[in-house]
Amino acid sequence: MSTKPSSVFQTPTWETIQTAHERIAPRIHRTPVLTSATIDVLCGAEIFFKCENLQKTGSFKIRGATNAIFSLTDEEAARGIITPSSGNHGAAVACAAAWRGVPAWIVMPKNAPAVKCRAVEAYGGKITYCEPRMSSRNETTARIQAETGAVLIHPYDDDRIIAGQATAAKELLEEVGELDAVLSPVSGGGLLSGTVLSAKHLQPGIQVFGCEPAQADDAYRSLQSGTLQAMDSSDTIADGLRASLAQRTFAILRAQLSGIFLVTEEEIVNAMMLIWERMKVITEPSSAIALAPLLKPETLAKIVIPGSLTRKPKIGIILSGGNVDLRALPFV
Amino acid sequence: MSTKPSSVFQTPTWETIQTAHERIAPRIHRTPVLTSATIDVLCGAEIFFKCENLQKTGSFKIRGATNAIFSLTDEEAARGIITPSSGNHGAAVACAAAWRGVPAWIVMPKNAPAVKCRAVEAYGGKITYCEPRMSSRNETTARIQAETGAVLIHPYDDDRIIAGQATAAKELLEEVGELDAVLSPVSGGGLLSGTVLSAKHLQPGIQVFGCEPAQADDAYRSLQSGTLQAMDSSDTIADGLRASLAQRTFAILRAQLSGIFLVTEEEIVNAMMLIWERMKVITEPSSAIALAPLLKPETLAKIVIPGSLTRKPKIGIILSGGNVDLRALPFV
Repeated sequence: MSTKPSSVFQTPTWETIQTAHERIAPRIHRTPVLTSATIDVLCGAEIFFKCENLQKTGSFKIRGATNAIFSLTDEEAARGIITPSSGNHGAAVACAAAWRGVPAWIVMPKNAPAVKCRAVEAYGGKITYCEPRMSSRNETTARIQAETGAVLIHPYDDDRIIAGQATAAKELLEEVGELDAVLSPVSGGGLLSGTVLSAKHLQPGIQVFGCEPAQADDAYRSLQSGTLQAMDSSDTIADGLRASLAQRTFAILRAQLSGIFLVTEEEIVNAMMLIWERMKVITEPSSAIALAPLLKPETLAKIVIPGSLTRKPKIGIILSGGNVDLRALPFV
Repeated sequence: MSTKPSSVFQTPTWETIQTAHERIAPRIHRTPVLTSATIDVLCGAEIFFKCENLQKTGSFKIRGATNAIFSLTDEEAARGIITPSSGNHGAAVACAAAWRGVPAWIVMPKNAPAVKCRAVEAYGGKITYCEPRMSSRNETTARIQAETGAVLIHPYDDDRIIAGQATAAKELLEEVGELDAVLSPVSGGGLLSGTVLSAKHLQPGIQVFGCEPAQADDAYRSLQSGTLQAMDSSDTIADGLRASLAQRTFAILRAQLSGIFLVTEEEIVNAMMLIWERMKVITEPSSAIALAPLLKPETLAKIVIPGSLTRKPKIGIILSGGNVDLRALPFV
């Protein structure tokens, strides 16, 4: 993996996102938008959950991976694909590479959940384990890339990936109409950047917020300080949210994001339990985090909502993934 | 509860089912139909899951309960509602009664899952516990009904209930088009009778099968013998499938059902685990049972499918409910 920051960004345009959507739509699920009367009461808002946990491979990651891999020329694709991933992007790359008929090498931290490793293998991906640090991940990826000659598809520092992830919010807003705000998890920022791009294009007045574990708060610190903050290692139950922003995602979020909500580990687990019990859909901790802020009354006060004295706020949530080890649940 | 078999059945007509659908549609979810490429491969068929586990109150039971309770006159409704229920029908009656603004008394077996009892209470239902036998359930219901004067809404021996439950298969077939077969769980037979009525009306050539625990096989025995078989008590992890057919549901199933598949306890748990892991939706054992037969190769051979040498069978499954105690999962 190149450790040089990309110097020229081509932030995806609306046309790029539309093209991505046309490219991937025949291969992925158009996931349902679910609602829960009970959760609406608890939050004091109308909440629309875009269920990417019900997406192929169990997360939104298949959107970006499919867009990137099917954007390659035949010559490029034939070299195979390499990527570092905490799990869901790895499974998505392995799956999309299999659809394209080319090999995939996935570099995963050795503390990735077993269920995510099994998924990568089930799609035919070849796993190399690394230490659970960004530095080890980058070094291992660079080594395998040099050995194999495979094409690197970075999990988020890649415009094709961002354009693909942007299609989830595009579908949500096209289906439910006008929203006051959208909340999405943030890790490397691919999903959140894509969400910002689609949401602000379709509804310029909308607010978009990221939700981040307080124990892995690099995006929050980066946006507060105005310079990209490193996070070499992190410890959170939200195993999909242990990566840090890249220059590319930082630039998009800095320009257009409304803010970041920090969430404790206990709040993540409580939100996850609530979604499982009430909505009957399996969400991983990294995904349930996007509901957690709304279960605290002070959060709504931070979202400026026109006319909110006379109506309930309407808020979209991207439920990003559902890959959890059912034999090691935090609330059992 | 009347223990006399109803002597005159008015099996719901298509018009009755359409009226029920119009009555309940504004109050319930139109649940999504989900698919899984992995499960399709495992079964050798294209499977369409009608996700009533994502329905309001967590099961299809809200369809029948809403239809029945909103069919009552104001005078009838004002007396309140009483019903015996292993859980999901009780929660549905409590919820629909609350929508109508009238009280609900629910008679539940004392071994009903805690999560189902909590749900009844959360909707404002008043629970009386009985022994986990049909005889105790009937006696207790009759006693409370005499004390309160409430209107009995039987969980399945009621045409309004059957017409309401029929709307799930109606939505499924209207959405996915032609299917070779539909599989649904069977307990008292309300859902399965409704499924048969809708499916056979919309697609006369379709086959409809019930799925029943081998450890609670009264429907299988009744249909085999041609006379209604009793089952006073039963022991299965599928807590929603411990009731037995009534005259009314037996008559419908006897006339039009293609057959019943019996399933072991282990097969139920395996199917449940597969649905959770692959489809990311929470299904209770009573609901996962409807996938279990298709995981055995011999089952497809029992479903006569025209042209099956040249194409994959298309099969619908009604995933009936998602109310499970997350702290007492069978596969953890």
